[in-house]
Amino acid sequence: MKKNLDHIGVAVRNIDDSISFYKNILGAELIDRYKSDAVGVESEIAIMEVNGARTELLAPTNNTTSPIAKFIKQKGKGVHHIAYKVDDLDDALVELKARGVRVLADTLRTNKHGRRLIYLNPADTEGTIIEYCDYPHCL
Amino acid sequence: MKKNLDHIGVAVRNIDDSISFYKNILGAELIDRYKSDAVGVESEIAIMEVNGARTELLAPTNNTTSPIAKFIKQKGKGVHHIAYKVDDLDDALVELKARGVRVLADTLRTNKHGRRLIYLNPADTEGTIIEYCDYPHCL
Repeated sequence: MKKNLDHIGVAVRNIDDSISFYKNILGAELIDRYKSDAVGVESEIAIMEVNGARTELLAPTNNTTSPIAKFIKQKGKGVHHIAYKVDDLDDALVELKARGVRVLADTLRTNKHGRRLIYLNPADTEGTIIEYCDYPHCL
Repeated sequence: MKKNLDHIGVAVRNIDDSISFYKNILGAELIDRYKSDAVGVESEIAIMEVNGARTELLAPTNNTTSPIAKFIKQKGKGVHHIAYKVDDLDDALVELKARGVRVLADTLRTNKHGRRLIYLNPADTEGTIIEYCDYPHCL
């Protein structure tokens, strides 16, 4: 199944400073900014676009339970995940299973923009958290 | 100055396993594979392309002195840097200086493919190592 780079997810502490950097230094456009209290997210999120390439900035809103806070504590701020769009997430999950690549099942969710997503287990990807996503409600 | 996402740099331990993952799971094409003994690199490098989006896999060849080895020891395997292409690296450096963004001066180099690059100081980017690069020898 075809995959396309969808976005780069970056764990940050200060969402305002990060938005400023992407806008003023990289020349990015702020596409959206919102908070998600969903379990497994608990972050303030800003979608930035640099000439079509999207970065999702994630700043934890709960320093104890947010997985972004845990990531920063363990590894420091920086790239959290790389997301690839697939044609159909259900088919992609079947494909992954057939090839022995595990997913982090509790990460399966649909976000504010109707993006369905799941994270692959980094133990099976040589360390990078890779997100697979689709947009079943978008043409 | 306009910036465009050029590639995602990923620190890995096993270059063969990583190439296999990108080929067999993500459907990537192997564009090039080579070793660089340059100071500040000391890695085996594979350039993978998923529908036009490039990932640079970097596996340290010297476990003591390679900065990739140091990165992995500190943070684990995963995304090491995000590279943005600029029109002219010299002009971009002037722009960065004017805006108070520091670079890691000792990372300035030209790679095998004629790509001139430098890393921005992650202290000024909210944590991500961002590479600026240009290709002065390519049309």
